[in-house]
Formats: sequence, structure tokens, C-alpha cells
Amino acid sequence: MNHFVSIQLDKKSKIPLYQQLGDALCELIQKGILKPNTKLPTIRTLASQLKINNATVVNAYKYLESKGVVYAQMGSGTYVSPLPLEMITFPVLPEKDHDLKLKQISISKNTINFANISPPTDLFPVKDFKEMFNEVLERDKGKAFNVQDDYCYDHLQESIADYLTTYGIHTSKDNIQIISDTQHGIDILSKTLLQFGDVIFVEKPAFYGTIAAFANRGARIVEIPLNFDGMDISLLEGCLKLYQPKFIYITPYFQNPTGYSYSLAKKKIILNLAQKYNTYIIEEDYVSDLNYSDKPIVPLKALDKQNRVIYIKNFSKVLVPGLRLGFLILPEKIIERILSHKHSINLSTSGLIQRVFDLYLRKGQWQKHLKKIRTIYEKRYYCLLDALEYYLKNYITYIPPQGGLSVWIKLADSISAANLCDLLLAKNVILSPGSLFSMMQDSSSYLRLGFATVDENQIEKGVKIMGDVLDTMLTN
Amino acid sequence: MNHFVSIQLDKKSKIPLYQQLGDALCELIQKGILKPNTKLPTIRTLASQLKINNATVVNAYKYLESKGVVYAQMGSGTYVSPLPLEMITFPVLPEKDHDLKLKQISISKNTINFANISPPTDLFPVKDFKEMFNEVLERDKGKAFNVQDDYCYDHLQESIADYLTTYGIHTSKDNIQIISDTQHGIDILSKTLLQFGDVIFVEKPAFYGTIAAFANRGARIVEIPLNFDGMDISLLEGCLKLYQPKFIYITPYFQNPTGYSYSLAKKKIILNLAQKYNTYIIEEDYVSDLNYSDKPIVPLKALDKQNRVIYIKNFSKVLVPGLRLGFLILPEKIIERILSHKHSINLSTSGLIQRVFDLYLRKGQWQKHLKKIRTIYEKRYYCLLDALEYYLKNYITYIPPQGGLSVWIKLADSISAANLCDLLLAKNVILSPGSLFSMMQDSSSYLRLGFATVDENQIEKGVKIMGDVLDTMLTN
Repeated sequence: MNHFVSIQLDKKSKIPLYQQLGDALCELIQKGILKPNTKLPTIRTLASQLKINNATVVNAYKYLESKGVVYAQMGSGTYVSPLPLEMITFPVLPEKDHDLKLKQISISKNTINFANISPPTDLFPVKDFKEMFNEVLERDKGKAFNVQDDYCYDHLQESIADYLTTYGIHTSKDNIQIISDTQHGIDILSKTLLQFGDVIFVEKPAFYGTIAAFANRGARIVEIPLNFDGMDISLLEGCLKLYQPKFIYITPYFQNPTGYSYSLAKKKIILNLAQKYNTYIIEEDYVSDLNYSDKPIVPLKALDKQNRVIYIKNFSKVLVPGLRLGFLILPEKIIERILSHKHSINLSTSGLIQRVFDLYLRKGQWQKHLKKIRTIYEKRYYCLLDALEYYLKNYITYIPPQGGLSVWIKLADSISAANLCDLLLAKNVILSPGSLFSMMQDSSSYLRLGFATVDENQIEKGVKIMGDVLDTMLTN
Repeated sequence: MNHFVSIQLDKKSKIPLYQQLGDALCELIQKGILKPNTKLPTIRTLASQLKINNATVVNAYKYLESKGVVYAQMGSGTYVSPLPLEMITFPVLPEKDHDLKLKQISISKNTINFANISPPTDLFPVKDFKEMFNEVLERDKGKAFNVQDDYCYDHLQESIADYLTTYGIHTSKDNIQIISDTQHGIDILSKTLLQFGDVIFVEKPAFYGTIAAFANRGARIVEIPLNFDGMDISLLEGCLKLYQPKFIYITPYFQNPTGYSYSLAKKKIILNLAQKYNTYIIEEDYVSDLNYSDKPIVPLKALDKQNRVIYIKNFSKVLVPGLRLGFLILPEKIIERILSHKHSINLSTSGLIQRVFDLYLRKGQWQKHLKKIRTIYEKRYYCLLDALEYYLKNYITYIPPQGGLSVWIKLADSISAANLCDLLLAKNVILSPGSLFSMMQDSSSYLRLGFATVDENQIEKGVKIMGDVLDTMLTN
């Protein structure tokens, strides 16, 4: 209980004492020093420890109660709330420094933007989509905006099921739930699978937004280190013995940020572990469509005989940001649970976009478009590898991802990624430091270089600038 | 503690005893008999009361804990969870009987559907929208799908602000937040304004879905009776003295289900009360565009000098279901709070629809379309009033709403609305009984007759059938 003694109150401040005390207690709760359902000291104890009036403590507790941070139990005392953090007035995770910096940068035409891994809007197939929109509106009239009772357009469920067979996934249309984006899918899954305080496993490093989304639902996150061929299996099994995670969230192909893909062997081991320890795997198919190798893509879902895998895919990741269309493949048990809760879960996704994309898939336009952009990105990918080899050979190591939209590079030990990013910012080159991709802000000697929106000229030029800056950094 | 003695367990059942006990306790919690943070009996006490093994009670408590329904406190016992109900595996409010019946009905071409108050898809202006889609895609290309950082397309914020001046609302574009639908707006408002257990006031009767949405966020709902000219003011003020509601949710024009509109005097009184008792008013503009009288529409927001009103409107309610576009007008303080939490609140609405609707507004097409459909609905409205006068005069009373898409009728005391609905169902005429619109299932002598998707012929025919059925009911 020594945490309380360390609380500093400033009697001269304009902020009332009760509020200062409340905020200080909040900080202890946010930092996890005071756990949910911990009893707070009695009014008298805390008042005498801090040499303040009883009334100040009473008001501080009331103030915290009004924010939902603590709850009072009649005759028993005041306890730290076990409420999901999203219902509490404080953001769960602080915004990362670099994010803030990026926002202040005005991205001009001359900026070389290696931070972006979203497809550029100028590759979007406008003409084809216009045709589809017209055809759908002509065919379905006002009905074009509507969907079925379960918020899915059943023809699209069918055409997705059909498209999935090319990846070896055989599933019924009824197991497919249409979603607007990854965030939407995560929201549905959280509401269906998670209860406050449940443990889930994620890869480390991983995309920060996904972690934050689960944390916001009150999940406790365990990070399992990711090797070049998948999660560290012995650590994974160790953690499975310790915790009972509701699921393991993985990205088997071209993971963000590492670009790593799972080996077939590891995929099989993880499936067996999920079965042995009675948990689910959420497989995010991030950009497996952008495969530059000859090796066929084998999703975990294609190997899943025990219905342990929930598959999530967002078409926006490859087509155009803002399309707002994706889908989940769900085991029947979970589909039933979702449908029985559909009044309290937001399931809706634009009916018009569902109809348009259905037609786009059925006419083979999607495969045609993939082929086209795969060629473009593949050129950029090899151009980036060449430039890295030529300009940065002495400073970095990396594993060629053979797909996706970024390369994850490790800097020599003597170089600080944060420093390098700052120096490059000044030269109008932006990229993502590794510290963005873990809750603990480690991976600090890594960088992610995205090539979604930089053409070959810019890649060459940008990497050359990186080389120059590194030369200068290391001679100083 | 007598609730527990009444629990009946069936030792012959295939359902394990612990689960039977768990489900029975759940029911007590769902019904509100056991309140949040109530301590459950000790294992030994409950086991001896119910004459079962201690282990059965232990397992029942564990089972409930796994569902998040109760929580255990080390050394102290097991308590009813204060978690928001949406995080618990059970739906908050049971689905209403009539809803279920409606779903089982196959609505055929011959069905006369007075239950629907959504615009029919055949009045949707396909041709105009096709033009807008083509123009936007041609103009913005792939960018057509994107929006700004705060998920709003700023030109649309501008054109909405401009459109609002015709209703006497003067607001900056920065106070407008684009949303997908009412449910989405409620979700944003709940996450921003509500904490678990907060009190809110709603009208009684009211649309069931809205109440359920707030209840799902853990709000405690107080229903204030609605008179023909607005909320009962003395009851409202009485409740304001008792509770401190986070907000009062009202629909000043053509309220669903009653069709009632607030008098100017009551609007002013409610604004003053909100100021006096330091609360907000959420004003839902449901279908004020469909005004069949000469009186101008004066939204509460147009009278709001103290920034007490949050205005919410969904264009789908008049244009086409499934459009998924609406907006909120928010006081600055709330906008700031939303933007500071935007990573944990889903704010996104299709960029494409935002751009298309912006153009639709700017070209004056929206006003043109409103004029057209207002004429159509006005005809149906007067046709319905005529038919009610002709066929049902002796059985009902009602207040002509002078706008909107439904009429709320009160049956003579001797008639049961539920019975009447059942008899009409058998004759392929469907309508909504009043019991659907209150948590307590009262308003049982009322019916809502919607005329959104029935033409004049059907209206005449349907009301005649109602008259015939009532004749038969009352002669028997």
C-alpha cells in the first residue's frame, strides 16, 4: 500500500485537491499498479497518510466513481472498477510519439513516403467499378442498398466461398460473415468471444491498431515473439500452459510489420496446439494476394480440419483504402452466437458495395486486377531490394519477405532507429520505426520500409538518401 | 434471500445440475432481482438450502464466472457482475413476441403491410443517383473512397450545414459528425457520454431499438410519458429532481410510434429544464421532412442558445433503407471528446456515399426528391385518415399527426390490440401493436399503422378488413 504515500498533492495549485488526488489514483489504476477489484484504503487511512481532510478523500472517491473508475460497495468500501476500459474516460494506450510527429508533417509531392503500406488510389480500377455500379443500380434499383436479415448479401457470400477454393479453402456460404474492415471484424469477434480480462495471444512485433482494438475491449494481451518462420513455438506452448487464451491472433503471410511468413511445419504445429489447448486461432490474411514467389499460398484455414481457425480478410488492403469490404470465415458455433446477439452487435456493411463487389468477383475482374497490381508491386519490391543491397549493405540485415508491401530491416547495433527517422524526416523521407509495433516500444533497432506508394525512381532516391544520412551519422 | 429457495432443479434432466442452477441464477440477475455487486450466498448455505452437493454450487459459480455474469473476490465471496450487459453472454432484453411472429410470416405480394414505416425501394431516385456516382468516380477516381482524418468528407459537412439553415439551424461545419445510421450515432454518443449505470430519460412510448441500444451500453432507462404536445412536463421535472440524467432523448416531430409533435411552448420549457438541471437533450429528427401541414418545422436545435441540444438525423429514413448516411450536430465540448477518443470509437462512414450525397445536396436534388415523395405520402396519409373515419369511426380515437409515415390509434377499451393483430395476421394484414413500444409492454390498447409501403388501394382495402374483423369481434 506504499503507492499511496508517494502521491504528491499541490495545495497551491488551481486544480482542487480532490481532483489531484483522483487523477493520481487514476494513474495508479491505468498503470496497472492497482488491479481491478482491489479495495482502496478507507477514507480515514488515506486522509491521515496524506495529511488532508476526510472530505477531500470522499470527494476524490466520488469523482472517480462518477468516471466509472471505481465502485463503492455499501458498508464494505471502495474498489477499483473491473469495467472495460473503453467505458472509462481514459484512453487505454497512449498515442505513440511517432504517430503524432507524422501528423504534423505536411506530406508534399516531394515527400518520399516509406511509411505508407496502403495501396495508392491511382491504381484503383475506376472504369471497371463505374461499370459495376451502373449495372447494379440498373438491375436492383433502390433495392441495391438493402441486404438480408443477417446483413450479408447472399450472392456475395457465394462468390467469396467460390473465390476461396482457389486458395484451398472449402467453406459454406453460411460460414461467411461480411464485414466493413478489419476493425469491424475485430469488434464482432471481441463482442462474441471476449469477456473483460480474458487473455489473448498476439505476435510480437505486430500492428499497433489491432492490439489497441483488443485492449480497448478489456483483453489482457500476451505477446509471443515472432521468428522468420512463425511464432516461437516453445514460448507459445509455455504460455499456453500458463494462460488459457481465448484465441491466438496471427498473420501467416507477409506479416505487418515483419513481412515474415509461417513455414508449413509451424502452421501444422500451431493448429495442433490450438486443438490440444482448446483455443481458437484468428488468421488475418493481410496481403497474401501479393505473393512474388513461385510457392503457392497455403492459408492456415485450408489446413484446418478441427474448425479451430477464424479467418479474416479485408479487400481494402489490396484494392483501395476506404472501400470498406471484407469478410470473416467462422466456425458454426460462433456464427450462431453472433446471430443470437445480432441486436447488440453492429453487423452492417453497405449493401451497395456488397453487390458491386459481388459482380466484380463474378466477372473475374478481381483476379485480373490482382495480376496487374502484383506486377507493379513486384517491380517495386525488387527495386527496393536492389537499392538496399547497393546503398545500405553495410548498415542493415533483413529477410526478403517475397511478398507484401514492406520490408523489415534491422540496423547495425550502433545505430538508433529513432535518430535515423528524425534525420530522414528533415530530408523529407518518412518511414516507420520498429518501436511502433510493440506495446513495450522495443524493436528499437528495426525499421519498416513500405513501398505501396513510392515508384521505382523514388525508391532509388529515398534509399540513397538513407545511405548518405547513415554515412554521416557513423562518421560523426 | 428467498429467491434462492424457489429455484427448482430437475435431477433427472440431461442438463447437468450445476448448469440448471447457473441458468436459474442468471434469470434472477437478468430480471434485476439480483442487482450488480450483490453478494451471492456462500457455497455451503446455498447447497444446504437446495439440498445439493457443495461441488454443484462451486461449479455453478464457476460457470457463471466464465460467462462474466458474476465475479469472485478472494476471501470474500462471489458477487453479481457490474459489467455492461453487452459483455455478458445473454441478450439484455428478450425479443418481443410479436417480432418473432412477424419473422415467421412470409410477406407476399398480397400482404397489406401497415407494420412498415421505412420508405419503399421503388421510390428511390435511381437515375439521379447513378449520375452522381458516375460524376464522383470520374472526378475523384480512387480517392472517391477516402475521407479525412476525422472520417468526415468536409464538403459534405459544409453542404449539410448549408441545408440546415433552411430549418433555422445555424451551425459550423466543424460541429457536424457524419454517421452511417441512427444506431451508429447512438453508439458514438453512448461511448462518449455514458458510463455504466448512468441514467437517461426517454419518451414513453418510444422505438424499442433505440431503448435497447442504450440499455446495451449499461444505461438505466427512465421513461417519461408523452402527451400529444410533448413530454409530460411536471413528471419530467419531478424525475429531473430525483435523478441526474446524462441526457433526455426526444423526437420533437412525428415521433415513432405516436406521430406526436412538440408544441413550441414545450420545446422552450424543455430547453430551460435542460439548462436548469445541467443535462443534454438528444433531438432525433426522424422524418420532419414529411410535413403535411402549413406550419413551418422548428427543430429544438434552432431554439438552442445554450448548446444543450445534440441533433441526430438519418437520411435513410426518408430516402432508402440501407443508404447508411446521417449526421450528428454536436456541441464543441463533445466533438473534442470524440476526437480525443477516436481510436477507440468507430467513426467511419463510407467515403463514396458521403461524396455522392454531397453532390446530391449541392445540385438541389434532395429538395426536389423530398417535394416529390412528400406529395405521394401526403396522398396516402389523407387516404388513411378517410378510411379510418369511414370504417373504424366507432372503434378508435386518434390524433392526426399531420406528418410522418404512421398514425397511432387507440382502440376502444373493450378491444385487445394483441387479439386484433392476431386476427388480422390471419387475413394477411400486418400492423404493430402498441406493446412493442415500451419496456413494460403497456400501451396495449394502441396500434401503429404505417403507410410507407402501402398505396391508396391497399390502404382502403386493409382498413376495410380491420373494420370487418372488429365488427365480428364485437358482435361475438
